[in-house]
Amino acid sequence: MMEIIDGGLTTPQGFKAAGVHCGVKYRSLDLGMLYSEVPARAFVGYTSNKVKSAPVQVMMAENSEFLSAVVVNSGNANALTGRRGIEDAITMKNVAAMELNIDPKQVGVMSTGLIGRFMDMHKVRYGISRAARELEFGREADSLLAEAIMTTDTIKKESAVRVRLTDGTLVTIAALSKGSGMIAPHLKVLQGTTLCMVTTDAVLSENFHGTWENILEDSMNMVTVDGDQSTNDTCALLANGKAGGNCADGDPNFIHALQKVMTDIAKMLALDGEGATKLIEVQVFGAETKKDARSAAMSILNSPLVKSAIFGSDPNYGRIMMALGNSDCKFNIENVRLTIKGGDMEVPILDSGAPVFQEERSVEVVRMAMDNKEVTIVVDLAAGSESAVGWGCDLTYDYVRINAEYAT
Amino acid sequence: MMEIIDGGLTTPQGFKAAGVHCGVKYRSLDLGMLYSEVPARAFVGYTSNKVKSAPVQVMMAENSEFLSAVVVNSGNANALTGRRGIEDAITMKNVAAMELNIDPKQVGVMSTGLIGRFMDMHKVRYGISRAARELEFGREADSLLAEAIMTTDTIKKESAVRVRLTDGTLVTIAALSKGSGMIAPHLKVLQGTTLCMVTTDAVLSENFHGTWENILEDSMNMVTVDGDQSTNDTCALLANGKAGGNCADGDPNFIHALQKVMTDIAKMLALDGEGATKLIEVQVFGAETKKDARSAAMSILNSPLVKSAIFGSDPNYGRIMMALGNSDCKFNIENVRLTIKGGDMEVPILDSGAPVFQEERSVEVVRMAMDNKEVTIVVDLAAGSESAVGWGCDLTYDYVRINAEYAT
Repeated sequence: MMEIIDGGLTTPQGFKAAGVHCGVKYRSLDLGMLYSEVPARAFVGYTSNKVKSAPVQVMMAENSEFLSAVVVNSGNANALTGRRGIEDAITMKNVAAMELNIDPKQVGVMSTGLIGRFMDMHKVRYGISRAARELEFGREADSLLAEAIMTTDTIKKESAVRVRLTDGTLVTIAALSKGSGMIAPHLKVLQGTTLCMVTTDAVLSENFHGTWENILEDSMNMVTVDGDQSTNDTCALLANGKAGGNCADGDPNFIHALQKVMTDIAKMLALDGEGATKLIEVQVFGAETKKDARSAAMSILNSPLVKSAIFGSDPNYGRIMMALGNSDCKFNIENVRLTIKGGDMEVPILDSGAPVFQEERSVEVVRMAMDNKEVTIVVDLAAGSESAVGWGCDLTYDYVRINAEYAT
Repeated sequence: MMEIIDGGLTTPQGFKAAGVHCGVKYRSLDLGMLYSEVPARAFVGYTSNKVKSAPVQVMMAENSEFLSAVVVNSGNANALTGRRGIEDAITMKNVAAMELNIDPKQVGVMSTGLIGRFMDMHKVRYGISRAARELEFGREADSLLAEAIMTTDTIKKESAVRVRLTDGTLVTIAALSKGSGMIAPHLKVLQGTTLCMVTTDAVLSENFHGTWENILEDSMNMVTVDGDQSTNDTCALLANGKAGGNCADGDPNFIHALQKVMTDIAKMLALDGEGATKLIEVQVFGAETKKDARSAAMSILNSPLVKSAIFGSDPNYGRIMMALGNSDCKFNIENVRLTIKGGDMEVPILDSGAPVFQEERSVEVVRMAMDNKEVTIVVDLAAGSESAVGWGCDLTYDYVRINAEYAT
């Protein structure tokens, strides 16, 4: 069975982490490192933005089956930096490999921060060297790495579970993510700026790629803060097998536990969206295809009008239908049912293409449901049997403020 | 030749207009009427949102070749109102037809305002009857109609030109539009909430549909305020032929003049986007296909990160490339050139996939270019010979404020 634990990336056996300040950012930690004592099988999803950062290009080209370390910096995305950027990303791998005495192919690299500026490699080299010497395990090490990869994040996004596999082996899964703006990841397993690292001591084979892709599709790829997919999104799962036991590829307990961790992270990303005050969950049922269901959920979550209405608890539910109508999803408006949930309230809004009620007093009930930290929009399309769930956040003054002054 | 004039919908011969207050809105004018003394050939584009308002459904079903009048109300969109909404829209046509003593098929109907509330037909009937009696021509009548269709608009969106056709006939074209939020029209000629009426006394035949569709594609359909396409978008061109002369279908002077009027209106819609402080124009050159060029322009204009950076004159130009990378457009980043223009400044930003400059002092120049009421982003994809121009606006605190309190 699965147990939710207070853990981080180094809670699974055989992982260490570090986070240091090297000067890419003015004061805060800006360089992190994750290390596995034994090479871990790696499953990595990358942004599908056509403009890919240098570290993404370098990792995709190498496409390593095993990773022993990942080096990450914040403050500079090393994107839109041409050939010099590529060389800098390769240097980051090489320096880490030298410090850790491992093959450069076994070093992953991720960057997040401002786009379009060259890295100050003097600082980054120093940071990598220091991080390699400070690798530790335990909650403090987890925390340092978590801090080192944050940009406009306001909360650390960690989730960890311990799960007993069907063969009796006890394994741990932990995930760490960052991301607050430019969030609408659409990660493709090759084989945001959302950076995400997931560690587990379970044994996985290369056959796990498909399952990992499916889990990403239902978690990270169903999160949107602003519909803007980053040039740097990378999500790496490292499985070092230290817990022993059978291969967990098809173990339902393992898959369920990993889904749980990734869903947690997805919701944290949405809730910590830049300037967000509310988490919005959209549940779409009764779609003809899975793609329709996803498209409907994402269209609603990406609508600035829906997002700002929810910020103000403004019962302007017509906008939800406007957004649904702009999606690629097929439906007959006369069959659609719409419900808004918030707190312990569940308010039916639309039935058979027309609002359930009209009086101002009833509309007030919608406002009360919306006036909660978590607002859930349930759409039943009555067009089939597929469903999808997605997460987003409200559009607030602070989103505008943060993004009007980002580079300043 | 073409002359820009101070004119409105009733400047072309044979058109009258009215705008009255009937109580749908608390105080301001809320019901307008446009009338042509002789039936005018009508070319109408409608929203492609799958959730269509009742008036759009009614007009599409009738698909009248000629219109003598258009009745418009603001304050209530009559959308998401089921069968009762359809009946109300039909009633609006019938009442207007009776008052004007014309065939109901020759009455167009448009609505804009809150979605998901039934119309108060008692008030609307009164308004139509009064408007029919107050029809006039002249700038004051234009103005009353313009006011009656405004919602969150802050400026009247009118444009008019007089043009001499190749056969010597002098014709007038005038357009009136409203729209400030929920703006990303994607009008399809059958045969957003942008309402637009265009009058001309030129003679046009049914063959003009294709040309009208092309003009809409390059004008109204290249405007976005928030990427949210309304349920109510309708754009109607009425040509009553009162100026006489030959059919103007293929007259280059007429087409050019109509393009000018529609481009003016498109830019006004963008500049008066809810909360907007700046007009953003995106010019895309060197695309492989027209579709690629449009997709690139719209992806940049719809990015909340680009929009809020421009609001703050924040020189975070990497976001423009992020947005380009998320479009459906094909390009090789190593060939892309990016330039930002504002005021009398023209700043090259990107060449061969890397920023042209790096020093903070140079970045300051980008800020200065962005710190203008009109900011132009020029993208040369060097992938072909197609181009497109689109218009949008910045994302501001006021956009959030307006839309967090709309229904309140």
